[in-house]
Amino acid sequence: MNVLVINAGSSSLKYQLMNPETGDVSAKGLCERIGIDGRLTHKTADKKVEKEIPMPTHAEAIKAVMDILVDANDGVIKSVEEIDAVGHRVVHGGMEFSDSCIINEEVIAGIKKCIPLGPLHNPANLLGIEACQKAMPTTPQVAVFDTAFHMTMPAKAYRYAIPTEYYENDSIRRYGFHGTSHKYVARRAAALTGKTEFKMVNCHLGNGSSMSAIKDGKSVDTTMGLSPLAGVPMGTRSGDIDACIVQFICNKYGMSVDEALNVLNKKSGVLGLSDGKSSDFRDLEAGAAEGNEACKLALEKFYYEVAKYVGAYAAALNGIDVLTFTAGVGENGITTRKAVCEYLSFMGVKIDDEKNNVRGKETLISTPDSAVQVWVIPTNEELMIAQDTAELVNAAK
Amino acid sequence: MNVLVINAGSSSLKYQLMNPETGDVSAKGLCERIGIDGRLTHKTADKKVEKEIPMPTHAEAIKAVMDILVDANDGVIKSVEEIDAVGHRVVHGGMEFSDSCIINEEVIAGIKKCIPLGPLHNPANLLGIEACQKAMPTTPQVAVFDTAFHMTMPAKAYRYAIPTEYYENDSIRRYGFHGTSHKYVARRAAALTGKTEFKMVNCHLGNGSSMSAIKDGKSVDTTMGLSPLAGVPMGTRSGDIDACIVQFICNKYGMSVDEALNVLNKKSGVLGLSDGKSSDFRDLEAGAAEGNEACKLALEKFYYEVAKYVGAYAAALNGIDVLTFTAGVGENGITTRKAVCEYLSFMGVKIDDEKNNVRGKETLISTPDSAVQVWVIPTNEELMIAQDTAELVNAAK
Repeated sequence: MNVLVINAGSSSLKYQLMNPETGDVSAKGLCERIGIDGRLTHKTADKKVEKEIPMPTHAEAIKAVMDILVDANDGVIKSVEEIDAVGHRVVHGGMEFSDSCIINEEVIAGIKKCIPLGPLHNPANLLGIEACQKAMPTTPQVAVFDTAFHMTMPAKAYRYAIPTEYYENDSIRRYGFHGTSHKYVARRAAALTGKTEFKMVNCHLGNGSSMSAIKDGKSVDTTMGLSPLAGVPMGTRSGDIDACIVQFICNKYGMSVDEALNVLNKKSGVLGLSDGKSSDFRDLEAGAAEGNEACKLALEKFYYEVAKYVGAYAAALNGIDVLTFTAGVGENGITTRKAVCEYLSFMGVKIDDEKNNVRGKETLISTPDSAVQVWVIPTNEELMIAQDTAELVNAAK
Repeated sequence: MNVLVINAGSSSLKYQLMNPETGDVSAKGLCERIGIDGRLTHKTADKKVEKEIPMPTHAEAIKAVMDILVDANDGVIKSVEEIDAVGHRVVHGGMEFSDSCIINEEVIAGIKKCIPLGPLHNPANLLGIEACQKAMPTTPQVAVFDTAFHMTMPAKAYRYAIPTEYYENDSIRRYGFHGTSHKYVARRAAALTGKTEFKMVNCHLGNGSSMSAIKDGKSVDTTMGLSPLAGVPMGTRSGDIDACIVQFICNKYGMSVDEALNVLNKKSGVLGLSDGKSSDFRDLEAGAAEGNEACKLALEKFYYEVAKYVGAYAAALNGIDVLTFTAGVGENGITTRKAVCEYLSFMGVKIDDEKNNVRGKETLISTPDSAVQVWVIPTNEELMIAQDTAELVNAAK
């Protein structure tokens, strides 16, 4: 089976053609500068192709992807009919979607309904869906939501202590994101530990970071909230702050609330805390090694807040059996994992420095006598999307 | 020694005349409706007096307090000279004050400098100080700051992941409040456990709530932030929320940022979550007992967030030895304490239901085999203020 996985942004579109059973990727690539000019980067097992192709809209971008996938020289399939299904990443599923689903009129309407909650992402995701529907009108399309995995949270986790009317009228609540990644890692953790009933915390630490408290494979809490701003400090996002800071900055600098939120989304996080040095953890580690105090502080703050959330979620779950690290920093951050786990020795977390000396590979890094199994589990959101897509499409046959 | 403890608000002024060694209160009372008309309530061991007295400013309020303290019938001292010192509660000490101090010109200037950080409270606190200086020009006055106890926090706890300039230019950082209460309970915990080096979490749970992670008597983290809005949900304050909610509400309802923050400060917390039922935990417990789902949710959310912070601070401290509950809900909330501690059994917290059946009395409520000593310790901010005042005044003699 071939599933085409699509992640459409406002001016970009990522794709992977993959086998959901084996996880083999036959081709993947990226359309950039959609609406500006258009550039396609396409990779297969043995080559990489870069082309300038006019892409006034997402329709031309998808057309370019179709063309190169079936191209005699650069392609991997003979005809578009070999694509059995398309899986789309959709960022905000609001309260409409608690699982992936086959796209129909109703689903499109639901995704549109969530635009106020995901004003930046959902419209772009819809452009990707519409372009694919036009290019492959008979191929089933599936929507996989970043928020869906977290819809199992109890009210005490998803409700904010604000007037009820904002929840009832405006759907303001915690949604959480990176759900596809948390779900993938939770499934891998179950497979790797051979358990089905267990309590875990997954740390998805990358440029955007979120953590999830997971019980028996279901999310019961997560650090991101209504938006992806909340939780631990990120590359450029502040994570949790006192909401009064928004008021202070607006009043002091005559900023609009949108401008203040832009500061919190784009100029904050470890970038802001490192005094503008970098949003990239490799740069911060290099800076810290050279004695840069702001870089040191940014890293210390990050480790500290991640560790605090593990503690908080251990309370939420009344203890944990498994702790997992994933995404760029989680998979490659040897120092990060060590620093976070050092805070947690009180709850019996103990890692083996040698085993922890690993990047991007499924590895048990805790010692045999650790009270909590600690794993590095590389995430694979595309595979999760492809698997969800295959499952739904096969079930509907 | 007699210390007059003053807590001045914008239209009110609370006072206690107390012996800082014994904690005995000879008289206490409240001036209300200052600037409107004026009412004095005065209590001594054997009587309670209520009077209408014109109080156009705080000066007349203090004059009324002096008059009744030396009154032949209702007073407790013969002359104002018997007041050895005055201790003032000051809410925001910013980065200026890391301890209580004897008030002089420089201190007044420092308190004024912190007005942007504490715009509602500091001006009122200054009115109280100035009125006392006029009424008792030769009596030493001491300022005791709500923020001072938390000035021992490390940067990873007090810095926000926002651009450095807001810290350097505007002093935006976590300050924390209820410091006098946290300090008092930390000292009592040391006395009661007979330890000096230990790790504890204090839960000051009242209409306003904050928690503090305390190591060897020093605050290392706390839930309130730049302002008293942050942390766990409170009577009417939201506690931690996604800052994007401010943006959402402003844009959806055409509110100014000040109006949105007013919603978060005055209409949120358990009041908002209980759909306007009550900000009082006794009402919520009664509502929940009658089956009101919104009241149940408000309580569940509160217990959950308090427990999560205990877990987070256990990570911050790498384990805790002592857990303390104080203030209205902490001292009287039998159900609250039980619900919070149930989340924490994973870290060996175990309370004795019979011992926990206590209100407002210093009590060890954990079982002998609990890994963490759990105490109810009624707070006494006035006594702490009186003790700090006495200590400074005696040292300056």
